[in-house]
Amino acid sequence: MKRVKHKKDRIVLDTSLFVNPEIRNDFGDSPTEAIKGFITLAEKIPELEFFMPSSIFNELMNFVDRRKVPGRMLALIHQKSPSKHEMNCPAIFLYELIEDIRDRVNKGLRIAEKAVRDSGSKDERETIQSMRKNYRVALREGIIDSKEDVDLILLAKELDALLVTVDHGAIKWAEKLGIRWLLPDRFKDYLLSFLEDES
Amino acid sequence: MKRVKHKKDRIVLDTSLFVNPEIRNDFGDSPTEAIKGFITLAEKIPELEFFMPSSIFNELMNFVDRRKVPGRMLALIHQKSPSKHEMNCPAIFLYELIEDIRDRVNKGLRIAEKAVRDSGSKDERETIQSMRKNYRVALREGIIDSKEDVDLILLAKELDALLVTVDHGAIKWAEKLGIRWLLPDRFKDYLLSFLEDES
Repeated sequence: MKRVKHKKDRIVLDTSLFVNPEIRNDFGDSPTEAIKGFITLAEKIPELEFFMPSSIFNELMNFVDRRKVPGRMLALIHQKSPSKHEMNCPAIFLYELIEDIRDRVNKGLRIAEKAVRDSGSKDERETIQSMRKNYRVALREGIIDSKEDVDLILLAKELDALLVTVDHGAIKWAEKLGIRWLLPDRFKDYLLSFLEDES
Repeated sequence: MKRVKHKKDRIVLDTSLFVNPEIRNDFGDSPTEAIKGFITLAEKIPELEFFMPSSIFNELMNFVDRRKVPGRMLALIHQKSPSKHEMNCPAIFLYELIEDIRDRVNKGLRIAEKAVRDSGSKDERETIQSMRKNYRVALREGIIDSKEDVDLILLAKELDALLVTVDHGAIKWAEKLGIRWLLPDRFKDYLLSFLEDES
């Protein structure tokens, strides 16, 4: 059966697809190879348009040799920030964000107090290292905690795109905003399905 | 000169007006007396309508003997939550909030690390107390950090009202959103100006 022609679907990509070793192996052995592998496959799929917030693109460039990234990538993956000064978000999000942060801030304080109490009986350096780890987990995990995360979410919303990310915070907000999302470990299968369709 | 009749202006009140000792003395010696003093004055000003988010009203009720609050207060100060499921906020706020929180979270960790280091040479209880204080200041001051704060800001926005508050976080956001605000220590003078006008 022939596929009905739709408007091009849009995809917003996070770095994890190329950087996270477990995932990028679908496309290549290193971030640079993964980018090349992705380009080769994606160029065969005219039904899809790919986007990446500029902030995320810059993050990705820290993992690769800029000079070895083919110019075709710049044509294939559009770098674009969300129109952050024009877009709105539901006010209820402010409540959720602030309540969430409040809980985390309190948790952070409990962790710090415990560390001070532990420091009498344990090595200072170890105590601080373990506290740092626990503190970061408590305050950051599962939350949108960087402007890069907000860029991903808002760009996907603005473009009505499919968001490909492994970030729990971004996925949680995608759910709230009705944004379609896909874990990167299924992304190669997703892309291949377009090629099967055409055969 | 006779004042031109305008539509009633609206005022959103924070608890500080009645609770903060330095300010409430303009109206009465205790929170309950301050409420009564305010009512007596405000009832003479038909040009103004007063509002308080329900969450803020409940906060205020913790400071007074509920039974001694005159029923006229319920008629004079409308209790109303903002229409938080209908309202939007500019997406750029998400960025500002998240960047601000990120900085504070890092500061909190530095404070905790310092406390662990200090704990070798100082009393544990004192170290923890001083850490708590510094941590709270670093993570909360000047930021909107509770749903009550968001209620104040959104209600003032929704009603296009004058916000009377001493809270730095709320004032900062009022500035961003084009909300008029007034420090409570000038509020009695503000009210009295309406009476002078009529004489």
